[in-house]
Amino acid sequence: MTDVSQSPAELYRDLHRHPELAFQETRTAGIAAERLRSAGYDVVTGIGRTGVVGVLHNGDGPTVLLRADMDALPVREDTGLDYASEVDGVMHACGHDVHVACLVGAADRLVETRQEWSGTVVALFQPAEEGGGGAQAMIDDGLYEKVPVPDVVLGQHVGPAPAGAVGVHPGSAFAGANSLDVTLVGRGGHGSRPETTIDPVVLAAAVVLRLQTIVAREVAPQETAVVTVGRLHAGTTNNVIPDSATLGLTVRAFTEEVRVRILDAIERIVRAEAAASGAPAPLIEHVESFPVLVNDVPGAERIEAAFRAAFGDAAVLDPGQVSGSEDVGLLATAAGAPLVYWILGGADTPSYLAAAAAGTLDRDVPSNHSPHFAPVIEPTLTRGVEALVTAARAWLAPAR
Amino acid sequence: MTDVSQSPAELYRDLHRHPELAFQETRTAGIAAERLRSAGYDVVTGIGRTGVVGVLHNGDGPTVLLRADMDALPVREDTGLDYASEVDGVMHACGHDVHVACLVGAADRLVETRQEWSGTVVALFQPAEEGGGGAQAMIDDGLYEKVPVPDVVLGQHVGPAPAGAVGVHPGSAFAGANSLDVTLVGRGGHGSRPETTIDPVVLAAAVVLRLQTIVAREVAPQETAVVTVGRLHAGTTNNVIPDSATLGLTVRAFTEEVRVRILDAIERIVRAEAAASGAPAPLIEHVESFPVLVNDVPGAERIEAAFRAAFGDAAVLDPGQVSGSEDVGLLATAAGAPLVYWILGGADTPSYLAAAAAGTLDRDVPSNHSPHFAPVIEPTLTRGVEALVTAARAWLAPAR
Amino acid sequence: MTDVSQSPAELYRDLHRHPELAFQETRTAGIAAERLRSAGYDVVTGIGRTGVVGVLHNGDGPTVLLRADMDALPVREDTGLDYASEVDGVMHACGHDVHVACLVGAADRLVETRQEWSGTVVALFQPAEEGGGGAQAMIDDGLYEKVPVPDVVLGQHVGPAPAGAVGVHPGSAFAGANSLDVTLVGRGGHGSRPETTIDPVVLAAAVVLRLQTIVAREVAPQETAVVTVGRLHAGTTNNVIPDSATLGLTVRAFTEEVRVRILDAIERIVRAEAAASGAPAPLIEHVESFPVLVNDVPGAERIEAAFRAAFGDAAVLDPGQVSGSEDVGLLATAAGAPLVYWILGGADTPSYLAAAAAGTLDRDVPSNHSPHFAPVIEPTLTRGVEALVTAARAWLAPAR
Amino acid sequence: MTDVSQSPAELYRDLHRHPELAFQETRTAGIAAERLRSAGYDVVTGIGRTGVVGVLHNGDGPTVLLRADMDALPVREDTGLDYASEVDGVMHACGHDVHVACLVGAADRLVETRQEWSGTVVALFQPAEEGGGGAQAMIDDGLYEKVPVPDVVLGQHVGPAPAGAVGVHPGSAFAGANSLDVTLVGRGGHGSRPETTIDPVVLAAAVVLRLQTIVAREVAPQETAVVTVGRLHAGTTNNVIPDSATLGLTVRAFTEEVRVRILDAIERIVRAEAAASGAPAPLIEHVESFPVLVNDVPGAERIEAAFRAAFGDAAVLDPGQVSGSEDVGLLATAAGAPLVYWILGGADTPSYLAAAAAGTLDRDVPSNHSPHFAPVIEPTLTRGVEALVTAARAWLAPAR
Repeated sequence: MTDVSQSPAELYRDLHRHPELAFQETRTAGIAAERLRSAGYDVVTGIGRTGVVGVLHNGDGPTVLLRADMDALPVREDTGLDYASEVDGVMHACGHDVHVACLVGAADRLVETRQEWSGTVVALFQPAEEGGGGAQAMIDDGLYEKVPVPDVVLGQHVGPAPAGAVGVHPGSAFAGANSLDVTLVGRGGHGSRPETTIDPVVLAAAVVLRLQTIVAREVAPQETAVVTVGRLHAGTTNNVIPDSATLGLTVRAFTEEVRVRILDAIERIVRAEAAASGAPAPLIEHVESFPVLVNDVPGAERIEAAFRAAFGDAAVLDPGQVSGSEDVGLLATAAGAPLVYWILGGADTPSYLAAAAAGTLDRDVPSNHSPHFAPVIEPTLTRGVEALVTAARAWLAPAR
Repeated sequence: MTDVSQSPAELYRDLHRHPELAFQETRTAGIAAERLRSAGYDVVTGIGRTGVVGVLHNGDGPTVLLRADMDALPVREDTGLDYASEVDGVMHACGHDVHVACLVGAADRLVETRQEWSGTVVALFQPAEEGGGGAQAMIDDGLYEKVPVPDVVLGQHVGPAPAGAVGVHPGSAFAGANSLDVTLVGRGGHGSRPETTIDPVVLAAAVVLRLQTIVAREVAPQETAVVTVGRLHAGTTNNVIPDSATLGLTVRAFTEEVRVRILDAIERIVRAEAAASGAPAPLIEHVESFPVLVNDVPGAERIEAAFRAAFGDAAVLDPGQVSGSEDVGLLATAAGAPLVYWILGGADTPSYLAAAAAGTLDRDVPSNHSPHFAPVIEPTLTRGVEALVTAARAWLAPAR
Repeated sequence: MTDVSQSPAELYRDLHRHPELAFQETRTAGIAAERLRSAGYDVVTGIGRTGVVGVLHNGDGPTVLLRADMDALPVREDTGLDYASEVDGVMHACGHDVHVACLVGAADRLVETRQEWSGTVVALFQPAEEGGGGAQAMIDDGLYEKVPVPDVVLGQHVGPAPAGAVGVHPGSAFAGANSLDVTLVGRGGHGSRPETTIDPVVLAAAVVLRLQTIVAREVAPQETAVVTVGRLHAGTTNNVIPDSATLGLTVRAFTEEVRVRILDAIERIVRAEAAASGAPAPLIEHVESFPVLVNDVPGAERIEAAFRAAFGDAAVLDPGQVSGSEDVGLLATAAGAPLVYWILGGADTPSYLAAAAAGTLDRDVPSNHSPHFAPVIEPTLTRGVEALVTAARAWLAPAR
Repeated sequence: MTDVSQSPAELYRDLHRHPELAFQETRTAGIAAERLRSAGYDVVTGIGRTGVVGVLHNGDGPTVLLRADMDALPVREDTGLDYASEVDGVMHACGHDVHVACLVGAADRLVETRQEWSGTVVALFQPAEEGGGGAQAMIDDGLYEKVPVPDVVLGQHVGPAPAGAVGVHPGSAFAGANSLDVTLVGRGGHGSRPETTIDPVVLAAAVVLRLQTIVAREVAPQETAVVTVGRLHAGTTNNVIPDSATLGLTVRAFTEEVRVRILDAIERIVRAEAAASGAPAPLIEHVESFPVLVNDVPGAERIEAAFRAAFGDAAVLDPGQVSGSEDVGLLATAAGAPLVYWILGGADTPSYLAAAAAGTLDRDVPSNHSPHFAPVIEPTLTRGVEALVTAARAWLAPAR
């Protein structure tokens, strides 16, 4: 049974111990629903499979949607924390546990302070942000027929900035992303008789190295672009040449032109490398596509001003464009509402500053998706709750 | 319960349906043991975990060891046969089921004809030839304290030659083999932030392509050498750069000098490519080593003469050196006995000849370890039984 | 003998026909010197080997240095122009002929209008911008002991923007550049006996492919970075494996941190790939280093305002950061003066706009260094003269 | 003027100092012609441009053709010998100077001993063995209309075996060879703007690495095969991406099937890699093709017996198949005569044996085409003369 008296920090530790993969977030969703109900929200569950939304009507005024994503990643945790994942091979390596805990905390806080503001709060817990599909699944499942259409969509992502800091980048802020699965078809055989086979391992290696030339040679150096092969699998036994190899790619870009150029180049390279091996045509599946996340410019300015007023200038930074991707923008687009999505610092500040001074940030501060990713609990959780409340209040009407 | 009246062909279909991986051949070993006992052999089981040996004393004379290996491979069968594997992902893709069925048949036949010969027959069913270790495991488990030390070790391997044909190559006949597992250590992170990581997928690709230069550039063109990466695994998710990649290699050579040159080059390349990535030192494990299989020259001549007399000259071919490997030689070395090991044709003869004429053997006749490997049952099984009996009788004394 | 009555367009055609490589610009320098003298400038020649500077004192007021570079490139022209290069394998593929012709025209114009302004003009014709060294060579040769130290350094570069347009980017505008020569040492031998050699061609190929991973994996996607291998040479004969291979690299970056990261990675990769080949240590020579070109921000604003006033808003664009490099900044740094350096459009405007609309600019508008690079003569030359005069006048005092 | 009293050793030093490239062997041909004339041969010059043939009729009996090739290689000598090449960048790196000097010596010796034998000797000095074409050029120029058609063609090649040793391999002895020139077409541009180009240097690197997989993966390990890229050129300047890259390949194989498989694979890979770059179709030119050199089996046995009788068993070795190629076989084929072509050891024997014992032959004994190739003068020259005379005498009739 859910302990509704858990503080955000306690809830965070609990969630971190019990990570759940995309669309399997039943325990997390259950906790979120119970906490919302207990706080007085009207709750709808099972939107987009495991999505949960709580609605708090509090007089006239704007409707503000606060969003947290719930899913974990198939990463084997290697943090050594006493509250490390208890599920082998699954980890909250992207900080969605922080997002959930902060939104639960903010939902409570908004109830506690309801006499100060007027309007409607929609607290949305989304499944399956990683691997995509979660936001779209909620929309496709009739989200905005089940809960009020918001006037603004707000949310935050924890990342490797100093804990206590927040930052919002107006305009294009998170990259558009595409995910592709590639199957390279060879012809298997005995490991000692390569001449009877078409070796898909060698083909896969040639593909991976050639893909590096897209960012290095085909995209203008001034453009932001990423082509990553995050997954490569072939064969089961040292002395058997397998029949095929499978690759999983992610692509990032900030403009449609660059995105198209990259996807065309991937297709061209994969097909040509298969031809170079004398192999059958490869299979290229586009499994997911995230749009560029665009922060509404006046909206971002409004939020930044609110953060500066609440936390002081020193706590507000410009995170610039980040090459990560997010599907939160779909919730705003479907509502016809502006989006403001900010970065919440989670890194231990002294370590961060030392690494920054030494120029070793990339090495010493584990980033999202790393098996070592470990936001410090405080001031991260406290600031994350405050940021959601501050941002919501920047939109909600003052109580009359 | 084992049906001891099964013909070799029936037994073969049964074994093919029920493949068992190395050291897990309990069902196969049980059938072999029961058939040997039923035929009148003294049986010892559990030698080297799942090995089975039957001994038939039949008067004075030489002791002849006949060997079959029992293990299957982690290959997903794709033959469409009505007796295809019923175990998902496991297949008798190397024909050891042929070997077992033929040796069971030959053991029976030698009993039936026992009034014609004098001596001792040792019928040995070995585990774990693939992945090695099986022959050595039986020796280490006191094989030759439990059964008579043979005067000769005999055996056969089915392969892509015309069914009905047999062939023995004197001297170095099968390659020496080494198996290596390589772990490339990178540093994981978010798929959109490669600059914070050391990408082990790119490193693995560079290693695989560089390894091709060993055979292409470092070994003399006149030498026979193979370096195969049969296994390559990295990552679980498209948008997460993993922490490491694992490779499984097999190496073949016919001389110690070439073997050492190759192993040194692999070590050099793997370490240097890791350094090129700025990665930690890789882990290189030598998981198995097969010696070159050397057929005793006078012994091979004796067997070849016996085959010509029994089957006609047209059925006897010279298979030349094959790049496959075998651990059967360890059984002979440990006994201080000569070894004769021959090739048993298993390919449909008309298809084989058509492909040979068209120069498309490599493409059209599936070789061992292919998911399409499917020896024709006859005349393969009949000839395989006859070849074992003929070879054994070439060594056993005639009845007095 | 120089024809001092040549218009800038005529002079441009003449220079384009007679390109001269770095530090060999004797004909070009001779023409520049004679034109300056004829116009009334005090002329110093031979500064930094072939550099020429003309000084025009015209009353009190600021000293403005206008700079043009004179050298051509070792590129074989393939434009088909009737005034194409008459020197085989040498071409004004970077438009320095435009720069020289415009500066000669501007020097004349400033004399013609001398009653309108007050101050000192320094017209500087620099050798060897490509391959670098030219600006530094002039400074090292006592430039500022021979001519007045300027209060501002101005200049322009023609490029693939619409002819008639000008554009100045404040702050970091042109990339920092490094040039490296790499010699990979192998061991030569007969082409049929690779095993007796260390093949430097295979080593060079591995290096080139691995270098692609620096931009693709090691530099943050948001950063601008280029690693180009523009030159690769090995061997003389198909059937002889050579002793070595030589590579020529250029590197571009906009921050010192990225530059250092790239140079470190090149060094690491080249050394490790040599080790992977079992080759001796490679030779890595740093042959040239250009700083980032930084336009003075108030200076750039002043010039942009002057351009808008003179040419209309439509003719002024923001070229953004360009990944090309320039050593003109050294002339400003040595003088302790601000720098303003702008882009002068040279592309046929209708073709440019059609290609831009079709998204085929990269393909259809030849860029600098291409054998097809061919700025349209007008309005490029006229606008180039006007831009220099306008910019100079924005600094010079009005006549009293 | 030619000094006809030079010993073979003196002549060798002289030739080594004055190497001449293919079809430019005018000095060498002049010396050969004068020496032959001086010794009493009828001489025809200018056959196949620079070829020289001397004919000595000495009564009835077989006609024996002895052949030496004359051309040097575009290799920069690095031996440090006092008689090193005086022509920069040209070297007798393949020992054709040894062949010429020995044949001059043998021609003299056969004259001196003419009372001992009966028949006709044809001493043939061929141009352009490297790069091919020399033997064919002589045949096309009417060789066998100008000189008697031989009953046997004999010759020798110096190589890295102990000096004093000779060896003849019956049957296929030297590889068939093909030479290909490949032009990879990209699109040039500024080194800082790769996105506007198709980088032919990266394309060339990908081609070179992919070509390694032909020998490593596509040819059966038991087959002898070589694919070497001996020449790779692209670009002139670090900061200009060139328009194209050129590669020079040599291919070796001992069977037509393997040769075809390799040539097909090269074509497939080069075309597909160009497609992977989005580049225009590459240009693949087949510039030369040598057949497999096949020694007549009874002829080889006759010569080997003669060598054993003359030099002792210890001086006769089996060199096995060598992966080098030779066009001497064309002279035999055109004559319808058997060919016997042997290896003449040229390596310092103590160094050779030490390196063989240490397993460092490849490293320590420079092979043909190396800039360090330096046969020891004696006993190489003496044995080379004796071998030609002994072999010729094994065919010529004894004097009556």
